Amino acid sequence: APPEKARLCVACHGVEGLSVQPDAPNLAGQPEIYVRDQLRAYRSGKRTHEVMGVIAKPLTDAEIAELAAYYSAIAIELKKKP
Amino acid sequence: APPEKARLCVACHGVEGLSVQPDAPNLAGQPEIYVRDQLRAYRSGKRTHEVMGVIAKPLTDAEIAELAAYYSAIAIELKKKP
Repeated sequence: APPEKARLCVACHGVEGLSVQPDAPNLAGQPEIYVRDQLRAYRSGKRTHEVMGVIAKPLTDAEIAELAAYYSAIAIELKKKP
Repeated sequence: APPEKARLCVACHGVEGLSVQPDAPNLAGQPEIYVRDQLRAYRSGKRTHEVMGVIAKPLTDAEIAELAAYYSAIAIELKKKP
């Protein structure tokens, strides 16, 4: 099951981490370290975004690690060309 | 065929936009606007990264648009669970 905090991500990043907003990236299958580092950057303000800054601010290291592990584990592949 | 500038992306983001570096995101299937905005942010310095800043600095708007269109068009899907 998704981590509790993943409910904050769904509105833009989709139920399974495939983006539902034109300016939000897919999270499914993203490298775990990358996701962790971006959440930390939003939390510290090194990276800025009006929504992500607010969402990341209260996250603990454990919650960030859990979200990064969760989304990176949602496996993706290239769609087979018809 | 990939845009000429895509050769700069392959080392970290992979031949078809699936990351080959733990701290580099997948680009395949990312929303076009998101990719465009991130390249612009790296170009302007609004977003910082030691490699991406150098790569994005000389890119023109047209090259950025071409890269964003190229990578967003590489379709991805969730891997079917066995």
